[in-house]
Amino acid sequence: MDASDSADRALALTEALIARASVTPSDAGCQPLIAEHLTAAGFDIEWLPRGDVTNVLATRGRSGPLLLFVGHTDVVPAGPVAGWRSPPFEPTRRDGHLFGRGSADMKTSVAAFTTACEAMAATPAAVEGLRIAVALTSDEEGPAQDGMRAIAPILAERLGTIDWCLVGEPSSRTTLGDTIRVGRRGSLSGEISVTGRQGHVAYPDQADNPVHRLAPILAALVGTQWDSGTEEFPPTRLQITGIDTDTDAGNVIPGRASARFNLRYSPATTAEALQERITTTLETYAPMAGIHWHHSAVPFASDAGPLRQAISDVIEDRIGSAPIANTAGGTSDGRFIAPLGAEVVEFGPVNQSIHQIDENVAIDAIGQLTEAYEAIIRRLARIARRPD
Amino acid sequence: MDASDSADRALALTEALIARASVTPSDAGCQPLIAEHLTAAGFDIEWLPRGDVTNVLATRGRSGPLLLFVGHTDVVPAGPVAGWRSPPFEPTRRDGHLFGRGSADMKTSVAAFTTACEAMAATPAAVEGLRIAVALTSDEEGPAQDGMRAIAPILAERLGTIDWCLVGEPSSRTTLGDTIRVGRRGSLSGEISVTGRQGHVAYPDQADNPVHRLAPILAALVGTQWDSGTEEFPPTRLQITGIDTDTDAGNVIPGRASARFNLRYSPATTAEALQERITTTLETYAPMAGIHWHHSAVPFASDAGPLRQAISDVIEDRIGSAPIANTAGGTSDGRFIAPLGAEVVEFGPVNQSIHQIDENVAIDAIGQLTEAYEAIIRRLARIARRPD
Repeated sequence: MDASDSADRALALTEALIARASVTPSDAGCQPLIAEHLTAAGFDIEWLPRGDVTNVLATRGRSGPLLLFVGHTDVVPAGPVAGWRSPPFEPTRRDGHLFGRGSADMKTSVAAFTTACEAMAATPAAVEGLRIAVALTSDEEGPAQDGMRAIAPILAERLGTIDWCLVGEPSSRTTLGDTIRVGRRGSLSGEISVTGRQGHVAYPDQADNPVHRLAPILAALVGTQWDSGTEEFPPTRLQITGIDTDTDAGNVIPGRASARFNLRYSPATTAEALQERITTTLETYAPMAGIHWHHSAVPFASDAGPLRQAISDVIEDRIGSAPIANTAGGTSDGRFIAPLGAEVVEFGPVNQSIHQIDENVAIDAIGQLTEAYEAIIRRLARIARRPD
Repeated sequence: MDASDSADRALALTEALIARASVTPSDAGCQPLIAEHLTAAGFDIEWLPRGDVTNVLATRGRSGPLLLFVGHTDVVPAGPVAGWRSPPFEPTRRDGHLFGRGSADMKTSVAAFTTACEAMAATPAAVEGLRIAVALTSDEEGPAQDGMRAIAPILAERLGTIDWCLVGEPSSRTTLGDTIRVGRRGSLSGEISVTGRQGHVAYPDQADNPVHRLAPILAALVGTQWDSGTEEFPPTRLQITGIDTDTDAGNVIPGRASARFNLRYSPATTAEALQERITTTLETYAPMAGIHWHHSAVPFASDAGPLRQAISDVIEDRIGSAPIANTAGGTSDGRFIAPLGAEVVEFGPVNQSIHQIDENVAIDAIGQLTEAYEAIIRRLARIARRPD
């Protein structure tokens, strides 16, 4: 299999995956197609379904350090279909780009690492001494409960030590490989609910306006500097995502006001510390306020290691300059693998169009990413074969 | 006509008015019924309809100072009818009270001053030297555009100098006559709309959260002392009546946030001054914010004069202790008469149940109020007959 052969195969597989309308939690046949490819390449397949969610683990090799590719086959909804220049689930090549829901997030990288695994299996000497595994879920864009979170303990049991984990999330900003992610911020959400006493605006003394208690809380929250971040993490940031009142009439003081917010936080703080600070603010301005927390992700960070080095070298050699390694962006399934002790790095396509109408990926980037994944596997196999 | 006769007639007329479901702007035949009574009592009737709104002016007497009774026949909607112990538009006597929508606000006082006018007409010597007029509208609870606001210039033209104006709004707090109103605060409403840039919570630098700009504005508004009021007016108060965002998803920074508020303001400030202060606050925190104003009422206050003295004396003599004269509460049609130069005082039933389910008035209070209005007319007629 030469390079252009890999590129063509990866493009065809990406298109086949986009044509499967796998909106979370549906897999729509994506993983069976990938499992077919990997079985042909000598991988063992284990299905790990959880409720509506499809999960699969493919493994190859019996000994040596392990490289685990992690990906998801589910996509976010297409949004208003009429807004798309071509139907979201019909892969369409136009102006050097491949359009379709999931093209960037993340069917291209799933197709690319599947194709890279096939190519390596065709040249077994090059991967001698390295175990390779692929773990896929159809619940990354949704609740993320029955996907990688649920199967992580099983991965640990089946795979033993996971040395390196490459997540195919679209990490690149403007050109393929300009950015890789070596960690992710934590995510903590809260809903503040202030109950007052409804009344007529003309008689404020007979009422208790909950907005008047909520207002200084919101001002305090948006005015707080939570931390200064760390060397690798930007400072913790809070965003208010919604506010409302139970009534909205010109002459009525509402009886209840609420606000929802999300914190993306760095390892310079903890969810517990943030909760305590916010609870104190509440007690100052609205002792009667209630708060409901949802802690969806703890931050993770991987120290520089062989995986980051291999990815960085490959990008510099084959694509351009060395990537920026950062910890920006949303959450990813990497957060469930990092606690198992793996070095986790995310490297995938340009993310500019993800979750948007007319999501797309540069067609050239599909082949480049496939070749980069192949080169990374080869480098790690060489490291695996080195005497300790 | 003796006192108990007046009380019975006023009760019967109140019931007849409650049975007419006159939700704004409908008059439902209330004013024609009243006009019948007043015609029989020697009043001239002029109909002043404006669009859907029914207005009537009744006048009696050719010379002398003028006492104008002002009232409205419209009522607020009944709300959930199932919540009422008896149907809202079926006047029902129960436990010494008369129940029905409009019983307190303000069909009792309309019936009471109509009955008082009839009684006085039966004893013409007692009202010699005093002109009496009654002005009614069916648009006080609604937009208040086509009611007293619209006909005030016509009243001025038809009536000449309006010396005294008694508005029958339910001014009493817990017992009839404990409170009269000698002015009303102004009412100024505003809607602040802040447009930011929508985005993903994980990428706040690529978005501009409008809630974060609105929050300090709201905190500033609720933390401001606008003035200290005047001798007769409580300090100006602002109430936020509603807040919202255009999106309310846990991972989305909204693109727009808005807040609505109302100011009840004293004559210690002006609508213009308040608008300027709030505009300055907006410019500090959110120069891109828009604001839409609605100025529904300027404050008015009547200095102590013969009308206030007469009402106060009658209440003290006949009902109990002298009333408290204040300027609390919502707006009233008095604001359209005060600028014509009249001494305006509001005196009517207990307001505890107004606009609520099971609105009611004490049956005894209907007769007491009728007799009080009669006594007030007699006192003012005596003043009218005094040589200058």
